[in-house]
Amino acid sequence: MARINDNFQKLPGNYLFSEIARRVAAYRTENPDRELILLGIGDVTRPLPAAVVAAMHRAADEMGQVSTFRGYGPEQGYDFLRETIAQHDFAARGIKIRADEIFISDGAKSDCGNIVDIFAQDNRVAVCDPVYPVYVDTNVMSGRAGEYDPATGKWSNLCYMPCTRENHFIPEVLQKPVDLVYLCFPNNPTGAVATREQLAAWVNYANACGAIILFDAAYEAYITDPAIPHSIYEIPGAETCAIEFRSFSKTAGFTGARCAYTMIPEALVRDGAHLRDLWNRRQCTKFNGVPYVTQMGAAAVYSPEGAQQVRENLDYYRKNAVCIRNGLLAAGLAAFGGENSPYIWVRTPDGMPSWDFFDLLLKQANVVTTPGAGFGPSGEGYIRLTAFGDAEKTAQAVERIRSIL
Amino acid sequence: MARINDNFQKLPGNYLFSEIARRVAAYRTENPDRELILLGIGDVTRPLPAAVVAAMHRAADEMGQVSTFRGYGPEQGYDFLRETIAQHDFAARGIKIRADEIFISDGAKSDCGNIVDIFAQDNRVAVCDPVYPVYVDTNVMSGRAGEYDPATGKWSNLCYMPCTRENHFIPEVLQKPVDLVYLCFPNNPTGAVATREQLAAWVNYANACGAIILFDAAYEAYITDPAIPHSIYEIPGAETCAIEFRSFSKTAGFTGARCAYTMIPEALVRDGAHLRDLWNRRQCTKFNGVPYVTQMGAAAVYSPEGAQQVRENLDYYRKNAVCIRNGLLAAGLAAFGGENSPYIWVRTPDGMPSWDFFDLLLKQANVVTTPGAGFGPSGEGYIRLTAFGDAEKTAQAVERIRSIL
Repeated sequence: MARINDNFQKLPGNYLFSEIARRVAAYRTENPDRELILLGIGDVTRPLPAAVVAAMHRAADEMGQVSTFRGYGPEQGYDFLRETIAQHDFAARGIKIRADEIFISDGAKSDCGNIVDIFAQDNRVAVCDPVYPVYVDTNVMSGRAGEYDPATGKWSNLCYMPCTRENHFIPEVLQKPVDLVYLCFPNNPTGAVATREQLAAWVNYANACGAIILFDAAYEAYITDPAIPHSIYEIPGAETCAIEFRSFSKTAGFTGARCAYTMIPEALVRDGAHLRDLWNRRQCTKFNGVPYVTQMGAAAVYSPEGAQQVRENLDYYRKNAVCIRNGLLAAGLAAFGGENSPYIWVRTPDGMPSWDFFDLLLKQANVVTTPGAGFGPSGEGYIRLTAFGDAEKTAQAVERIRSIL
Repeated sequence: MARINDNFQKLPGNYLFSEIARRVAAYRTENPDRELILLGIGDVTRPLPAAVVAAMHRAADEMGQVSTFRGYGPEQGYDFLRETIAQHDFAARGIKIRADEIFISDGAKSDCGNIVDIFAQDNRVAVCDPVYPVYVDTNVMSGRAGEYDPATGKWSNLCYMPCTRENHFIPEVLQKPVDLVYLCFPNNPTGAVATREQLAAWVNYANACGAIILFDAAYEAYITDPAIPHSIYEIPGAETCAIEFRSFSKTAGFTGARCAYTMIPEALVRDGAHLRDLWNRRQCTKFNGVPYVTQMGAAAVYSPEGAQQVRENLDYYRKNAVCIRNGLLAAGLAAFGGENSPYIWVRTPDGMPSWDFFDLLLKQANVVTTPGAGFGPSGEGYIRLTAFGDAEKTAQAVERIRSIL
């Protein structure tokens, strides 16, 4: 008799976003005439840059002709894209990441999730609190999280690092050794960014105890402050302790086009094995590469026209972030993030529970947000707003929120 | 100190296809003037159908406009594609598979590999011998295979089902219970197809002992004999014991475009859990869906023009298969498959080891094949040829092989 992976049964039944969808649908059914503004889910709204669309057209045409058709591509991604990324994202910032240390994939979520395949099951895992749920859930599924305690909202085997107003939402370096540390900067959901010194402290910690930092840099393109690192590899020593995840989703509007990339330096070795080789084996066995059309589109992001169009989109969203942050601060709310980040993390008024504030904003302002409690115990008392919406509607949403407070 | 997943270290260092690539590269270096014909790797050579390319163009244009842009799609795939598949691949053949039992993905290899996530680690696994290496390697990585014995070429915890000339390359139903059974028909590498009765025997076995059949139907489009089932779900009772994997790769030339689909019937339950729900949770957590452009291209495969163009491509490859099969039979070799299948499985002459015959064909006929030993112990004494090449070159390759025998 086949038996299932019991760990799946430990996952709480309600996802954060399905519960939000349920409440929104219920409200809509009762109030069909109300126009809701969605600032909850982190999905972009600007179309793909024209240079990307043009490259996809050319690639589709190539795929339709015998002489230029391409079958199976390299599991690691085409060299033209890996080399372009190495040059523009890393060499141009003085970072030594080579093309053969870059793996193209269909999403940072896929890579963040699948990376656990290459690690031993008994590795001890540390996550920020609040946290992007994928880091936790994938470790639950693979048996590293232990048991869930509904009273505390925590898993027994995970090490939680509270990110609060007091520590400016930056986790303090741990006093005890762990094996895997998930860090995400600019942070989802808090919008916090880490300084060079803060990242250096984590790199030193990891190198001292042999931990691996799983560094999610999906939002690095939103950094405007020249003092803030875009990559963990800007920190000396990171090449022996860090894996970095990046994505075209929030940079170039690829949430529906699906392309991301993960860096594993050759120098990253544990138990005598190069993690790059393990990941390569994992990808060659369980993955067959990203569509040629998609990779051609992604490469166009780095062309002069593509880069300019991406900058325009990023500026568009940055203005939304400023609008939300400043508008809510003016309304008397404590708002964080929104600088160097597309996320704004907002304290609920008078210590209101985050799901109550979510309901209040849904019903009275007709604005959909994300309750902070969904990201972990320390997210209680906050909501998350995103800058990825239409500019006019975003401004309208801020006005509506101000008007009901 | 982070520790790696030890199971990765158990995998033999040399992949089958990298060893082939090494030998081919060495020969080319020494003989730069020789033109090699590649009939080894199962990659297609015909371009994408014009209807698919046209649909990709339209979809790329939609992604470039604010009003028609699409961000994150459903992790399970768009309804337009799931419903089209349910109608054309299943309802049209009288099979009750609903759209909500179909999961769109980036590849059958990905799904065959990732499906092990939802099963307990101590499930006992049965595979055909010879076998598509992904079934074995993914179970090695997840700790189900035990230890490798280089002397036998077998893993200690896997149950091998020999597929030989004596049993017409169809595994006999096991006498003992196992938990997971991988079956692939039309088979890779032997080209064998299973009759309704043979599949029914496996379905009865699985339902009797609670096993799950992981049914790889990636090559079903090559079936022309109306008596041969295309889907395991044509067998009554399969909905309570089988997961089926399909792909657009070999049907519509999507090896470089990346789209596949996996069926998990709602009725498939183990340990009180619906496997469909577990897979849905897995995909929602570790996957973010297939590109919209790709899914639009895949849907066009079912349009009248697309279906006609796909039929033409399939006929093209089928003629190659007949050419290879008949040519090698006429040359006095024992050739199997190549009917209802794009693979031809050829016995080496005089019991020659398969790597020796591979070398002979490489050096004397300048034809690249795949040595059967690479697919498992029972593959020794065979080579695999594929029908996916250029027609003229395929005929030339057959002539070359005949001339040296």
